Amino acid sequence: MRTMPATAATPDALAAQFAGVRALSTALVAPLSDADATLQSMDDASPAKWHLAHTTWFFETFVLRDHVPTYRLFDERWPFLFNSYYEAEGQRHARSRRGMLSRPTLDEVQAYRAAVDKAIVEAMPMLPAEALTLIALGCQHEQQHQELLLTDILHHFSVNPLEPAMWPGAAKVPVAMPGPIGWIEGAAGQVSAGIDMPEDLAGFAFDCETPRHPTLLPPHALADRTVTNGEWAAFIAAGGYADPRHWLSDGWAWVQANRITAPLYWQQVDGVWTRFGLDGRRPIDPAAPVTHVSFFEADAYASWAGARLPTEFEWEAAAAGADPRSGNQLDAAGPVEPRPSTGGPAWFGDVWEWTGSAYRPYPGFRTAEGAVGEYNGKFMSGQFVLRGGSCATPRGHVRASYRNFFYPHQRWQFTGVRLAKDL
Amino acid sequence: MRTMPATAATPDALAAQFAGVRALSTALVAPLSDADATLQSMDDASPAKWHLAHTTWFFETFVLRDHVPTYRLFDERWPFLFNSYYEAEGQRHARSRRGMLSRPTLDEVQAYRAAVDKAIVEAMPMLPAEALTLIALGCQHEQQHQELLLTDILHHFSVNPLEPAMWPGAAKVPVAMPGPIGWIEGAAGQVSAGIDMPEDLAGFAFDCETPRHPTLLPPHALADRTVTNGEWAAFIAAGGYADPRHWLSDGWAWVQANRITAPLYWQQVDGVWTRFGLDGRRPIDPAAPVTHVSFFEADAYASWAGARLPTEFEWEAAAAGADPRSGNQLDAAGPVEPRPSTGGPAWFGDVWEWTGSAYRPYPGFRTAEGAVGEYNGKFMSGQFVLRGGSCATPRGHVRASYRNFFYPHQRWQFTGVRLAKDL
Amino acid sequence: MRTMPATAATPDALAAQFAGVRALSTALVAPLSDADATLQSMDDASPAKWHLAHTTWFFETFVLRDHVPTYRLFDERWPFLFNSYYEAEGQRHARSRRGMLSRPTLDEVQAYRAAVDKAIVEAMPMLPAEALTLIALGCQHEQQHQELLLTDILHHFSVNPLEPAMWPGAAKVPVAMPGPIGWIEGAAGQVSAGIDMPEDLAGFAFDCETPRHPTLLPPHALADRTVTNGEWAAFIAAGGYADPRHWLSDGWAWVQANRITAPLYWQQVDGVWTRFGLDGRRPIDPAAPVTHVSFFEADAYASWAGARLPTEFEWEAAAAGADPRSGNQLDAAGPVEPRPSTGGPAWFGDVWEWTGSAYRPYPGFRTAEGAVGEYNGKFMSGQFVLRGGSCATPRGHVRASYRNFFYPHQRWQFTGVRLAKDL
Amino acid sequence: MRTMPATAATPDALAAQFAGVRALSTALVAPLSDADATLQSMDDASPAKWHLAHTTWFFETFVLRDHVPTYRLFDERWPFLFNSYYEAEGQRHARSRRGMLSRPTLDEVQAYRAAVDKAIVEAMPMLPAEALTLIALGCQHEQQHQELLLTDILHHFSVNPLEPAMWPGAAKVPVAMPGPIGWIEGAAGQVSAGIDMPEDLAGFAFDCETPRHPTLLPPHALADRTVTNGEWAAFIAAGGYADPRHWLSDGWAWVQANRITAPLYWQQVDGVWTRFGLDGRRPIDPAAPVTHVSFFEADAYASWAGARLPTEFEWEAAAAGADPRSGNQLDAAGPVEPRPSTGGPAWFGDVWEWTGSAYRPYPGFRTAEGAVGEYNGKFMSGQFVLRGGSCATPRGHVRASYRNFFYPHQRWQFTGVRLAKDL
Repeated sequence: MRTMPATAATPDALAAQFAGVRALSTALVAPLSDADATLQSMDDASPAKWHLAHTTWFFETFVLRDHVPTYRLFDERWPFLFNSYYEAEGQRHARSRRGMLSRPTLDEVQAYRAAVDKAIVEAMPMLPAEALTLIALGCQHEQQHQELLLTDILHHFSVNPLEPAMWPGAAKVPVAMPGPIGWIEGAAGQVSAGIDMPEDLAGFAFDCETPRHPTLLPPHALADRTVTNGEWAAFIAAGGYADPRHWLSDGWAWVQANRITAPLYWQQVDGVWTRFGLDGRRPIDPAAPVTHVSFFEADAYASWAGARLPTEFEWEAAAAGADPRSGNQLDAAGPVEPRPSTGGPAWFGDVWEWTGSAYRPYPGFRTAEGAVGEYNGKFMSGQFVLRGGSCATPRGHVRASYRNFFYPHQRWQFTGVRLAKDL
Repeated sequence: MRTMPATAATPDALAAQFAGVRALSTALVAPLSDADATLQSMDDASPAKWHLAHTTWFFETFVLRDHVPTYRLFDERWPFLFNSYYEAEGQRHARSRRGMLSRPTLDEVQAYRAAVDKAIVEAMPMLPAEALTLIALGCQHEQQHQELLLTDILHHFSVNPLEPAMWPGAAKVPVAMPGPIGWIEGAAGQVSAGIDMPEDLAGFAFDCETPRHPTLLPPHALADRTVTNGEWAAFIAAGGYADPRHWLSDGWAWVQANRITAPLYWQQVDGVWTRFGLDGRRPIDPAAPVTHVSFFEADAYASWAGARLPTEFEWEAAAAGADPRSGNQLDAAGPVEPRPSTGGPAWFGDVWEWTGSAYRPYPGFRTAEGAVGEYNGKFMSGQFVLRGGSCATPRGHVRASYRNFFYPHQRWQFTGVRLAKDL
Repeated sequence: MRTMPATAATPDALAAQFAGVRALSTALVAPLSDADATLQSMDDASPAKWHLAHTTWFFETFVLRDHVPTYRLFDERWPFLFNSYYEAEGQRHARSRRGMLSRPTLDEVQAYRAAVDKAIVEAMPMLPAEALTLIALGCQHEQQHQELLLTDILHHFSVNPLEPAMWPGAAKVPVAMPGPIGWIEGAAGQVSAGIDMPEDLAGFAFDCETPRHPTLLPPHALADRTVTNGEWAAFIAAGGYADPRHWLSDGWAWVQANRITAPLYWQQVDGVWTRFGLDGRRPIDPAAPVTHVSFFEADAYASWAGARLPTEFEWEAAAAGADPRSGNQLDAAGPVEPRPSTGGPAWFGDVWEWTGSAYRPYPGFRTAEGAVGEYNGKFMSGQFVLRGGSCATPRGHVRASYRNFFYPHQRWQFTGVRLAKDL
Repeated sequence: MRTMPATAATPDALAAQFAGVRALSTALVAPLSDADATLQSMDDASPAKWHLAHTTWFFETFVLRDHVPTYRLFDERWPFLFNSYYEAEGQRHARSRRGMLSRPTLDEVQAYRAAVDKAIVEAMPMLPAEALTLIALGCQHEQQHQELLLTDILHHFSVNPLEPAMWPGAAKVPVAMPGPIGWIEGAAGQVSAGIDMPEDLAGFAFDCETPRHPTLLPPHALADRTVTNGEWAAFIAAGGYADPRHWLSDGWAWVQANRITAPLYWQQVDGVWTRFGLDGRRPIDPAAPVTHVSFFEADAYASWAGARLPTEFEWEAAAAGADPRSGNQLDAAGPVEPRPSTGGPAWFGDVWEWTGSAYRPYPGFRTAEGAVGEYNGKFMSGQFVLRGGSCATPRGHVRASYRNFFYPHQRWQFTGVRLAKDL
């Protein structure tokens, strides 16, 4: 997880939020067998079972163990298995070995979830404010893992030659191809970005979004939509992956070493570009936003298109007035994927948008104390900021100041591209 | 698999053998969940599910597909998944990715087994002799995989910190510690080794055991039992793993690179040596044969003990008169492990015995034609011969001329050590 | 190289600059044998011979080949050997194989240098302005390689157990230990940073320094000197390398994987910390600036000290009024190393100072066209900016707006640490 | 080195042998610069300078240090640098870092050689028999390194795109293409192989050749010459490198992983096969023996040709009557390479012939005690025996019982192929 203390809503609202978040996780894994939920196809991804248990471990450890004196651990051996990178919480099972945990079984993990849920609900009336805050944090934490659970299972399934579908595909509604990109002129000059840590129960932010602080924007414009699959296919056809002039040096090395020629999950079948998704393999939809591209690819595309990526502050200023609950985000179990745009500029949902901003601390940023807050600052090297949430982000989780971050070669998330240019 | 054409017993005996072998595989995996059966902890080992399907693929391909014109494949996509290294049979799923096959499920694989079994039994009365021979070969092939299935699942479970037990352990019967090794003088001079390919239905051999040919033995003696856990603990205590003088150069590099300090699955817990087995973690039995040691360790131990390993021909000459169905071999599902010796010299069962013989062809050896026989000759570089079968070898599978082979660093099989010396 | 077109001084001044730069390279390698000059101890570093030839290739290619029609290449096979990462100039010899070039010999490379120098001097009166600009650029390029030549040879020599000294050490003048760090309050609010590309002959800048643009600085203070060896030894003694709380996640992984426990070239000999330098191995000088530390180490030290690293703009604003030719920089051949501070705040020389700023383009940055300008933008991922030059930077090369950059784990340059804090 | 104690000739003969061997090493490196002599292109190969120093270290250590009380080491730091794998002699410089030793210089190493030579010559009249034996052993040791020096420098030069020639090529005398292979029937039944350790001054053997012992040969025939470059080109043209049926499993993996399509140093230039040799790159001579092929290639060729490799005992029996000083072996500095056959069957010289025999101890083999004899037995896993010497083997070094050995993928030695078949 990547968090720090935060305030939460009213106790009743918190209880409802807790119930809703926990139920969604269970709904998401309904199509998975125990074996499906045990798979780990690469070190970056974790088994579904692990996500279910790790998010539960968070509540058990930081709420029940620390704030409910009578609580007894569900299984004393499990914290070693389901701690992630909380160094302060001690030793943990090697990340690359998570896929070896056929035991505990999925049923046992679900029983763990039920037991912890019950204990939390029972304890909630007696918990101090600090513990309630931790429950709110745990909900945010679990929402992050819900997105990872979906992107991870997609990856696990992708390496099985049978390419199983998690859910049947929805019927596609034909949509008119989007027209050329329009440019939205952004504010220039001094604007505020980030958020101050909310102090009442109605707000939430991760530490890396704080503090709110002034930034300077140059004269610029942002595209009114993200790049589509159809546009990306044109980039491929134009030799974009074979021309080093468009690529960062590290990106070119990555392309060469991994023989990258298309977005992750794309394959050309009988001359037609297809993609693998949670509903199996299907032809790409040329009108839909391209996804599963790395920062390196996003940057190269922008260079090829004579544009650049937006900075995270340009993006935040543009999205500041939009409804963060709008757009194609995750509401319930079922196939999710980016969908063609059907209206005006959309800032939230569909795909995380790579920005040109390295993930670094804001002026005045402070790392929180203790294990729960241990984690955002320590990732601040080598990664780039993404903004806006995706089709796999639980609705309600993201906001204009929200900073996601990944290494420039990673692309198993629902990541896409919006262009920007100087004016 | 590692085989070539062979003859088989009478049709009735063959049907009984087929039924028995197939049933044992099913019995062995009874304690495993779908997730357990999907695990792959290292490239050398395969998932239990894969063993079940691969052995079935053998019958489906070489018997049903090739000899039953009306047969339709159970699933056309599966041969790609469950072919192993039969190059002649075309492309196959990467070995290192076998652990990603949560689909097909264990139930689907069992249905595959049932369907193929039914088709074989129905077809058997009409099959030509050549196909019956392939059924006999398939039974031998499946027996090899039964042993691998057990050693592989042991390895898969060993990397789970919970160290699950496959079966509850049997009660240990206290046994008197064996006395010092006795030496059995072997025949010197010209003796025959190997076997000629049987031509009637009552025999079987793998191609690498052929042809029978003369060999010369020097004056020598073999130990009357294998090295025990207690003796191995003394080797450790004497610094055997830290003294390069006892080790082959490649072995010393392996020890250093992998920080080897004890047999695989050994751990010192509160000053007591324990081992992990199919019944979980328990203290070592000092009277039982040491197992899970590599050739490098076996050779170093022999050097430390002032002895050497036997050649495969010395071993074969000594074992020629013993009953190959005797000793601690696999009869049924349940925990298996090497057991203390309770009588005179035993040549079969308990542990495969590393010999000092590189695995190379016998004079006059010929590789068989076609896919089924493709395989023994191609492994004849870099490996060493083991003799005698183990506690995990299905009773009836092994014989005095049987040559097993592994690389000198491998030790996840039930491998042990018998000493030899020049006279 | 990392450059783009630039203007240069008057023709006479340019000729003098060219002569001076070229002569310094020759002087620097005077103590090296042909074999010394052939060594390559790691992929990041290049042989001295290669530096001599590559800088010459630059003049030969972009000035003589492109602007002197009668010029014939010194050797047609050498451009393949001595091109570096100019993709537009075609194939090139693998970087990791540069240490295999015992041929051409050092004498042959010196003859190459002499021939190209002669051709340049003869051609200079007839060259168009564009070519003169390229000569100026080539001088800056060669100055960058002079610094690399020194840091690379130091690394090459460091892996020889004999630890050869390049030059005898200078007699050390005892210096009073510096007192505690003083804090200099920096300007807050909007300040300009960067530089516009000079258009007359008197200026020079690399493209990544452009354009000059407004930035916002928070209230802050910078230390009045860099961290010393003595202070670093205290960090080590306090367990700084063993406490994950101070380290970025990637940094901690680097420390663990490489067993980092001290700056590069430090060794504890009989309880005394020593360092290897161009004058061999000697005890560290506790009063001198620490050097050969990575960004990860710099960041961890700052965290341990309750401070942070400065941003590149905070640094630039503070250094804007200082003389960039001041401080301990490279003037001539001879041992160079950071020296204890002897006066007020020094911004230039001694050690490159890691900043907390990721190396990314300034607003409005444009990549120049063509091979010569191909290169700064493409390195703008994953690296951090360093400021101020070092004891190995040729005097006159650096300026307040100068941006050096390396990956956060690299530390074979003369890199050091200045602390900053929020006010 | 790979040796054990041995006897030597008369003192005068020994002095002459010592002088001759030492002089040849010096002559061989005459064309090399200090930088050439410092190169190390792969871990398997060592710098020429290192060979010169290591062979000298042998004499200094085991003769002078151990037997001449007044002797003082030439440089106390050098034994660490120039010990090779004599574990008993203590720590040593990492093999993969030998190419970093620009210091000591080639001149300093030559001075070391001269000083040790002088000390040996002066001491020889007073030395005990044991020390004289060690001098004889040191001569054999140095001869082994003379061959490695040549094959190593060939490899070092091969990775320089300029492909320097060590010596100018000799004028090629046109030779008639050899006719088809003729088959020489070998003795069948019991024959003796190996050699007993000579006890007088006139003999020499390495421990791995001992003891002389009976072996059994099957009815067989050997080719009357080795395979030629022309025949190998036909193998390539027939798709030999692309058909897995001919390859050992490990060999096929090696071919695939390293994209092997021809012998080492072969390149197709404008449709013509060329090879790189000590006289530079030239077209292959179709009549000359193929060389620089691995065991894997040799075995695959034999399979493709419907034959097999000889065993080491078949080879030894056939060569037993031939003059081991005959054939194309190393006499003096100058380009060496395999030459077309001009007469009857030649068993010695031209190319080392891969046998199908794994390198394992003979019955009754004993490892000698102490550091000097530490070494042959420890290499007895994973390697194959080669017989007969090559064009780079100093004449007088090899004999019918001589066993050379390399891993099956190695091919930078002058290695070739003779076919065998069963009768």
